[in-house]
Amino acid sequence: MKTNKNFQTFLKPQEQVDLFFRESLGIVQNPNFFSFSMDAILLADFVRVTRRTHHIVDFCSGNGVIPLLLSHKTSSAILGLEIQKDLVEMAQRSIQMNGLEDQIQMIRGDVNEFKRHDVLYDIVTCNPPYFTLGDHHNHHQVEAHAIARHEILLTLEQWVAKAGQVLKMKGRLVFVHRPSRLDEIMDALWRHNFSVHRLRFVHPKKDRPANTVLVEAIYGGNKGGVNVEVPLIVYDDSENYTPELQQIYYGK
Amino acid sequence: MKTNKNFQTFLKPQEQVDLFFRESLGIVQNPNFFSFSMDAILLADFVRVTRRTHHIVDFCSGNGVIPLLLSHKTSSAILGLEIQKDLVEMAQRSIQMNGLEDQIQMIRGDVNEFKRHDVLYDIVTCNPPYFTLGDHHNHHQVEAHAIARHEILLTLEQWVAKAGQVLKMKGRLVFVHRPSRLDEIMDALWRHNFSVHRLRFVHPKKDRPANTVLVEAIYGGNKGGVNVEVPLIVYDDSENYTPELQQIYYGK
Repeated sequence: MKTNKNFQTFLKPQEQVDLFFRESLGIVQNPNFFSFSMDAILLADFVRVTRRTHHIVDFCSGNGVIPLLLSHKTSSAILGLEIQKDLVEMAQRSIQMNGLEDQIQMIRGDVNEFKRHDVLYDIVTCNPPYFTLGDHHNHHQVEAHAIARHEILLTLEQWVAKAGQVLKMKGRLVFVHRPSRLDEIMDALWRHNFSVHRLRFVHPKKDRPANTVLVEAIYGGNKGGVNVEVPLIVYDDSENYTPELQQIYYGK
Repeated sequence: MKTNKNFQTFLKPQEQVDLFFRESLGIVQNPNFFSFSMDAILLADFVRVTRRTHHIVDFCSGNGVIPLLLSHKTSSAILGLEIQKDLVEMAQRSIQMNGLEDQIQMIRGDVNEFKRHDVLYDIVTCNPPYFTLGDHHNHHQVEAHAIARHEILLTLEQWVAKAGQVLKMKGRLVFVHRPSRLDEIMDALWRHNFSVHRLRFVHPKKDRPANTVLVEAIYGGNKGGVNVEVPLIVYDDSENYTPELQQIYYGK
């Protein structure tokens, strides 16, 4: 933690603070309402920043886990955009708790309505809703979970298009998704003038199919330059985290 | 070997017979002119046949390695199509040497001109030229190698389109390619009414990027059903083939 403030000051009933050891950061969570997933951690780890990265925007920012983790890798200004008011407010308390108000701004808004005339972004990150409305939509889900997981308010097509509008030429869209939709993902990227630069597939174990894919696409980049990186394996044969996962989670 | 014929009967000068132990097959090769690659072996291994597989056609069949290996997995009729006369002739001698004339037919022809009005295929296989003409085209290459490796006579666009024309509805196009072109591959498949059903990435070692991808696409299939299979690792840390590769090569 970069501050010595008492966690309790920042918490409402049912909330807790989870810690990122590698980054020395805390994040406010409410397990009954919304918690970040492993996918968000893997996405933040997958993002490459350089000294020339000045502006990052995180779509579908939830409780701000991606901006918080990226603040450890870059001094770039980071904007988090989230449509759900309660999550924005939760993220803002995490930002304050970590003393990151100068670097991270969290705003409430619909990605479809997002416009920034003053800046073009170097990087757009997104941990989007994965499932189409046709996919087993469970109407009994808590609404915050449903909006985060299903394409109720935002479709793949919409956030890819919006990323193209706000990125500078050669800017990067970095996101996490389900491999089952890789064909739709690559079609949407192609049509919106993105080239796929890096793909990394995440397998729960080394002998299991991938259940997650990490994607970096370049706006206005060249076709035919896809790099399929070393597969990321989550658990070893003894059901423990692999060394790489331990490094990502605990920094060791 | 299914026959007791003397290999030498089937060989011309500079040619040799290589053996597939798992399949008990021999194949005529000429290392100075054209040899099949590991990619062909991996592709044949990746192809799934069922009892309802009755007709297979192999585009860019070279010296017939794919039809020969598939004959071990299925009793389906297999047609090999190759544009280079010398390779067709070499493949025909391999077919005779293994006594497979009743199952495998090898013909000389241009994929672009291929038409079969009497049958729609269950499976099209293809180990195509990987490189566009812009990719470091080496004019000093032996012509047979150049045609097999570069899109001189046949482009990705052309063989994908032709596969769609000759496959039955829900028939499968199974091929091997370079991951760097995955975006172009998936775009071509999408536009020609294929859905990607299975992807398998091949990594030379477990900590290296993929250098090969195996693809199974379904003609007229549904989108959003991509399965990214267990990665195939070629060499272990001691530079020996992994157990899976040993199984594919030697059947043990």
